[in-house]
Amino acid sequence: MIDFPYIKQLTRPTDSKIIMLVIDGLGGYPNPDTRKSELETANLPNLDRIAQESSCGLTNPTPFGITLGSGPGHMALFGYDPVKYLMGRGILEAIGIGMDLGKDDVAARGNFCTIDSNGCLVDRRAGRISSEDAQPLINRLDKITLEGVQVSVQLVRDYRFVLVLHGDGLGDQVSETDPQNLGVPMPEATALSEDSHTTAASANNFIAQARRSLNQRVVGNMVMLRGFSRLPSLPQMTDLYHLRPAAIASYPMYRGIAQLLGMRVLETGDSFEHQIATLEQHYSEYDFFFLHYKPADAAGEDGNFGAKVDALEKLDQHMPEILKLDPHTLVVTGDHATPSIFGSHSWHKVPLMIRSSSTRGDGVQGFSEKSMGTGSMGTVPATNTMLLSLAHADKLRRFGP
Amino acid sequence: MIDFPYIKQLTRPTDSKIIMLVIDGLGGYPNPDTRKSELETANLPNLDRIAQESSCGLTNPTPFGITLGSGPGHMALFGYDPVKYLMGRGILEAIGIGMDLGKDDVAARGNFCTIDSNGCLVDRRAGRISSEDAQPLINRLDKITLEGVQVSVQLVRDYRFVLVLHGDGLGDQVSETDPQNLGVPMPEATALSEDSHTTAASANNFIAQARRSLNQRVVGNMVMLRGFSRLPSLPQMTDLYHLRPAAIASYPMYRGIAQLLGMRVLETGDSFEHQIATLEQHYSEYDFFFLHYKPADAAGEDGNFGAKVDALEKLDQHMPEILKLDPHTLVVTGDHATPSIFGSHSWHKVPLMIRSSSTRGDGVQGFSEKSMGTGSMGTVPATNTMLLSLAHADKLRRFGP
Repeated sequence: MIDFPYIKQLTRPTDSKIIMLVIDGLGGYPNPDTRKSELETANLPNLDRIAQESSCGLTNPTPFGITLGSGPGHMALFGYDPVKYLMGRGILEAIGIGMDLGKDDVAARGNFCTIDSNGCLVDRRAGRISSEDAQPLINRLDKITLEGVQVSVQLVRDYRFVLVLHGDGLGDQVSETDPQNLGVPMPEATALSEDSHTTAASANNFIAQARRSLNQRVVGNMVMLRGFSRLPSLPQMTDLYHLRPAAIASYPMYRGIAQLLGMRVLETGDSFEHQIATLEQHYSEYDFFFLHYKPADAAGEDGNFGAKVDALEKLDQHMPEILKLDPHTLVVTGDHATPSIFGSHSWHKVPLMIRSSSTRGDGVQGFSEKSMGTGSMGTVPATNTMLLSLAHADKLRRFGP
Repeated sequence: MIDFPYIKQLTRPTDSKIIMLVIDGLGGYPNPDTRKSELETANLPNLDRIAQESSCGLTNPTPFGITLGSGPGHMALFGYDPVKYLMGRGILEAIGIGMDLGKDDVAARGNFCTIDSNGCLVDRRAGRISSEDAQPLINRLDKITLEGVQVSVQLVRDYRFVLVLHGDGLGDQVSETDPQNLGVPMPEATALSEDSHTTAASANNFIAQARRSLNQRVVGNMVMLRGFSRLPSLPQMTDLYHLRPAAIASYPMYRGIAQLLGMRVLETGDSFEHQIATLEQHYSEYDFFFLHYKPADAAGEDGNFGAKVDALEKLDQHMPEILKLDPHTLVVTGDHATPSIFGSHSWHKVPLMIRSSSTRGDGVQGFSEKSMGTGSMGTVPATNTMLLSLAHADKLRRFGP
């Protein structure tokens, strides 16, 4: 928790290495038929054995009842209060795909979408148009010009892109143009602060030109913009924790967050096999590794209980490769719950286990929501996960005489 | 928790209805003979079945160890930090009996009490004088006049009344005249802030005149004043949570709190049967119902273990009537513990269960302090109860990307 005022004085560099494995959307909920959660259903011999040797607990969002997005969820895990340091999606996506941003630039996340002849939204994701199909459209959008404001558009993946506006006097307090419902017209962007009128006008001009450029299409004939934001200035993990941190994640947003917090974002591939190979290759160079595992969340979001179980079992098979590196401290947790039966993120607690050279187990036999709740760490505010990780790695000095 | 800065953006109106049943003084403590608490002793088939289908946990006051009054206890349940938004008892009682208050008026709660010939307190409640006997005395007190300050006195019930002072420059930082002990003289009211000297002088003048007016009596020959307070300005639940909230409570203080928070306070009768009838009658009109059940606290305060068990069993028999309304989300909790063996409020945790269309139970079999502690919500700061209720009712958007 970086807002603990003595954090810089208490942290110390040591030789011990921390691997923090973040299983996106880890937390689940019982299937009504079997009364077992995804974790309880999955066969996880390696994660279960780690649980038997770990300090165990559950993290919860602060305050209870709030459902975190993956952005705030990861911020919290690294010790940053997401309420205080929340960043807009536009900036995160732009950084994630490596766009070069100045401190006054405004970024927004874009979706290709589909409207009917009345201008009403019929598909927020344009039939999940592929990256191949989207790239030529992106090239058109990138050629749009606005008076006094430079425009840059880049594809993220599939139907998603980033718009960056570069110019003078661009505030980032602008409303989104996603109506959040189907069958209704799309709202214009509006300025929510005095200094954001130019940004809102530029966004609306961009959308109008994009619509004209796409209007021959049936699917993907419109764009929506949201998450208008500028680069925040964030305390750096190197400085706060005296770490040499590295991030191994495939998805742009997670790479973007890691970079903003001062982690070295390592080049890696799309699969978890690639990520493990990257971890092995760079293991000697850093002392903190954020290792991100996405498939559990994707399956949960799809409402696919079986796929989430599979994703967890696949991860379990990789655990011996991680253990072979013999990290002093292995942290296994998630950024939020994504119960398959809800098909979305939720407010539920998330398992947390920390195995270090000093832990001997809490009597917990397996890796699940219920069993972790009986562990020695109890319920932990998610923003305290980083301190507990540092503590297990012997990287925290005593506070006070 | 209304101090979560994004609360207004995250809450959304939906069709789902929440009934929050607040069992006053719910939390108990084991009887030393049986080692069972009131909840564990009572036969509660309906509440037990609800527990089996709910998210379960325990609420605790913040900070731990604080014993909450019913006022702060209820404020916390509705998401208002009672330390930040604490209201004086005088204001609460005045609003509860429907007195018309201006924003500069100061209200104090009064007791008829009994002093001996030396002026020492011998009975703080004047033998619990009845409302019938008290009313003529109230009429006398209401005729008292003070220079530059208007006086209004109204009976609450039995030995309790409200004094309202109306005038210019009336601060509310005034000490109480209840010595909190018997056999000692009663202290004068003293100003605790610069702007409260007029109020303190008016209060002392009022007490002196009241004493002269009552000095022929043996019992109820004196008054004491406490809880000097002015009307607070509180964020409204309608605005914060996008709810249409209604309150169904018989006792003045709870009605007063509900009104201050923006709930519609429904006319109802003195018994819980009346309250249930009111709930049924108005069920279609609101989407949040605060339903208050008082008898458990009254029995606990009397130190009557058996009576508290009875009060809980009587409530249990009414649960089918509540369930028949088929609320999307049913919250069952208390404002504080009132263990019978202490005969007073206490700092102990309070059971909390939330049954919604998405909950499937936590494996908890019955409604008790111990069993709730094993539930999925764990220990919940009482001020987070409202967020968890909104989350279960699908009335909270996700926070961040």
